[in-house]
Amino acid sequence: MSKNHWKPNKETNVSVYQQIFIYIKNKIISGEWPDGFKLSSQRKLADEFDVNRSTIVTVLEELKSYGFIETKKGSGTLVTYNEESDFSLRTINWDSLIQSSIYESNNRVVQDINDFELEEQFIQLGKGELSPSLFPKSTMSQVLSSISNKVNYLGYEEARGFRPLRKAIAHHLRNHSIDVSENSVLITSGALQALQLISLGLLKTGSTVFLGEPSYLFSLKVFQSVGISLYGINMDKYGLNFLDIPYSKKYENRSAIYCIPSFHNPTGITMPSFRRKDLLKMSEQHNLLVIEDDVYRDLWIDTPPPQPLKSMEKTNNVVYIGSLSKTLSPGLRIGWVVANEQVINHLADIKSQTDYGTSSISQLIAYEWLKDNLYRDYLIEIRRELKFKREIMISSLHQHLSSLASWDIPKGGLFIWIKIEVNISIQRLYLDMLNEGVLINPGYIYGKRYRNYIRLSFSYASEDEIRHSISLLGKKIRSLSKLS
Amino acid sequence: MSKNHWKPNKETNVSVYQQIFIYIKNKIISGEWPDGFKLSSQRKLADEFDVNRSTIVTVLEELKSYGFIETKKGSGTLVTYNEESDFSLRTINWDSLIQSSIYESNNRVVQDINDFELEEQFIQLGKGELSPSLFPKSTMSQVLSSISNKVNYLGYEEARGFRPLRKAIAHHLRNHSIDVSENSVLITSGALQALQLISLGLLKTGSTVFLGEPSYLFSLKVFQSVGISLYGINMDKYGLNFLDIPYSKKYENRSAIYCIPSFHNPTGITMPSFRRKDLLKMSEQHNLLVIEDDVYRDLWIDTPPPQPLKSMEKTNNVVYIGSLSKTLSPGLRIGWVVANEQVINHLADIKSQTDYGTSSISQLIAYEWLKDNLYRDYLIEIRRELKFKREIMISSLHQHLSSLASWDIPKGGLFIWIKIEVNISIQRLYLDMLNEGVLINPGYIYGKRYRNYIRLSFSYASEDEIRHSISLLGKKIRSLSKLS
Repeated sequence: MSKNHWKPNKETNVSVYQQIFIYIKNKIISGEWPDGFKLSSQRKLADEFDVNRSTIVTVLEELKSYGFIETKKGSGTLVTYNEESDFSLRTINWDSLIQSSIYESNNRVVQDINDFELEEQFIQLGKGELSPSLFPKSTMSQVLSSISNKVNYLGYEEARGFRPLRKAIAHHLRNHSIDVSENSVLITSGALQALQLISLGLLKTGSTVFLGEPSYLFSLKVFQSVGISLYGINMDKYGLNFLDIPYSKKYENRSAIYCIPSFHNPTGITMPSFRRKDLLKMSEQHNLLVIEDDVYRDLWIDTPPPQPLKSMEKTNNVVYIGSLSKTLSPGLRIGWVVANEQVINHLADIKSQTDYGTSSISQLIAYEWLKDNLYRDYLIEIRRELKFKREIMISSLHQHLSSLASWDIPKGGLFIWIKIEVNISIQRLYLDMLNEGVLINPGYIYGKRYRNYIRLSFSYASEDEIRHSISLLGKKIRSLSKLS
Repeated sequence: MSKNHWKPNKETNVSVYQQIFIYIKNKIISGEWPDGFKLSSQRKLADEFDVNRSTIVTVLEELKSYGFIETKKGSGTLVTYNEESDFSLRTINWDSLIQSSIYESNNRVVQDINDFELEEQFIQLGKGELSPSLFPKSTMSQVLSSISNKVNYLGYEEARGFRPLRKAIAHHLRNHSIDVSENSVLITSGALQALQLISLGLLKTGSTVFLGEPSYLFSLKVFQSVGISLYGINMDKYGLNFLDIPYSKKYENRSAIYCIPSFHNPTGITMPSFRRKDLLKMSEQHNLLVIEDDVYRDLWIDTPPPQPLKSMEKTNNVVYIGSLSKTLSPGLRIGWVVANEQVINHLADIKSQTDYGTSSISQLIAYEWLKDNLYRDYLIEIRRELKFKREIMISSLHQHLSSLASWDIPKGGLFIWIKIEVNISIQRLYLDMLNEGVLINPGYIYGKRYRNYIRLSFSYASEDEIRHSISLLGKKIRSLSKLS
């Protein structure tokens, strides 16, 4: 090597070590220093590059770790690189990236169910959604036409959401005795995003969320993926039993209670007023944040549920979640969080950092529905339909499952939580029904303890489908119980 | 206390310790054991409750920690609770909850800018969005009308997104030499959500993302909030300089390069083909995931940018991001990720766990735009407009800032990155301009080193607004430089 040998530039940001590494690596990759090429001694390299020998040692170690060079006793340091071996070795290991990623994959059964729920050949007996036949097609078409003449621009909205929509939601909430201004309302992409924002914005790694068990949240990783634990709390006929929440200083200021007081998913239980008050009192005494998920409230069938916790509290501990997904349309992806303004502004900031806000067109549509009482009128119709479908399912259950299972009649919502009283494998039942083209939700996705439960929805399948598949369900349970 | 004293139930899930804690706490809260009431000795309590004395010790310690009781030398254990003091003490400390939460708040200056960007009284000279005057109102109105007759239901879509839209995007990408099926496409709520999904789904806490500096990502917490570090890499006139990326085993299989090869935000730089190839080669040699953010590609003004990295790679290392936000409408919130199917399925699963999918109505609208070439025709118009507005800004800059600042003319995108060559405080300039009703983006929100830069956008403000505010900018810079 000549006196005019390349030397690292000591006056740039790039470290001398890195420059030499790259220099040698490029010599090797370009083939200028081919496989078997013998490098100068460490001392000589240090001299040529005008650096300390220790720098050379470090560079050579790094090159070795990549397999570019090898040190052989007696022969010195040799290039061991050839292009083909390199490319065959070096591809990203996606499996390992995915498995070690921050967010965990969903439970496999739940992933399957999500897939099957989109397939039209199945009778959807578990799906927590209103039937497409109940979709208010003509009103929605009217709303879309009226919007088509008004849309002058679809830019980013304020992080909290379209103000007229927030006002309309605040107005709607007054029917439920929640009296807040639009500044306490944040529009989210459905209730699930509301939970994600709360987990990221109000809790910390190591926090605990107490929630009534069974729960659909056990099958999602929204909390667990950021290091928050779920702690299942027993439910009695009044819902989440607050007496079961462990009292310990370690949970203070770092925990939350998650509850669905009205028409709980999956049990259908509605918490009476006295339990709501006790739960609130407890949360106030122990500084526990309460996440009140009230997405089924508007789906009451017999009588409206008791007032929300949010309307009863004295201390602003309750973060309230609502949504149009269960009532009007899941595809709009419109939900909301109600909390004190400080919390709302913080959650809005996080939302703006994660997706820059919810679809403006969805917000415009939601606004049209809420502002003119289209939504209220629509709910009246839906209640009638739900009542009818609930009756059909209950009478089918009586006819076909009365000796095999037990259930309570929910006063609203979408679900009937059924305890199978004979000893069968629910997994087998789930698969057998699937084989017959009927999708039911096995209880164990709501908690390991619920191996003898299933969740049915009376809202999605048609009248005939319900009758047919409940009769089938009875037969399958009976035949499985004979096997066991 | 009588022989028939209450005793904890040893056969429930609730621990004996908890039951006793609740029992005593309720006695105190109810007032049955009032302030000053003396509790029985530990031994006697253990006897009455039929538990070990150690359990009683633990319960009393816990009660003390809440301030329900106190032990006084000589007087034993006394109730010290009174209801008022309790409620005044116990409110959630929201400040602390927010500050210790997982997701960090946005930079204060950026929060301000986000707020100001929504206020109509300001001239938006920094806003990275097309002007509402360019919004294709009549075509959008047509699209909405046509949809209004077709919407039969708005349910949850498949997690990856509405299949016809994914097909249309795959078709659109073929124009950019990216040849994938719809199974390699995931619909997201804009490009930012794509980044969030990648951070949660492909990286882990402790990972490093290398990115060209300056970057708008320094002002967001999308990566940092989940424990991923950003590592700024120098840019030269060809864009991100891959030679500056440190080579070390420790980054392998746990790092990514984030780049905007075409019309970089904020610098406007477009990476030439040779640099793209070198960057890819480097990523392949070192197993680095490449996140290619290509949201400005369709906004070329003079000539289309070189082919995307995604179209050139041999190894599937590139995760590609596109969006309609910069070109058609931010409010639709439609973006996409393109990657191998395994990655797409995993990211789709995470998406379904965080928001159950992007607005169906937004997806329908995007589909209408893409399927009939409405989008392509619209882009031709937009390019003409952008070219015109860029000329106006450049000529204004020449007129008013030629001796004060320097800049390159971007070949597309929305931004001009301006280096102020006189010694002034950019913060002061930002505030002075704000005072005059003009919003500019100070360089330091893109990295601490950029204290003498500003980012202007030629896309949002009107012709007159651009002329007026650039002239004002010249005056302000001049007067600030005289002060210093």
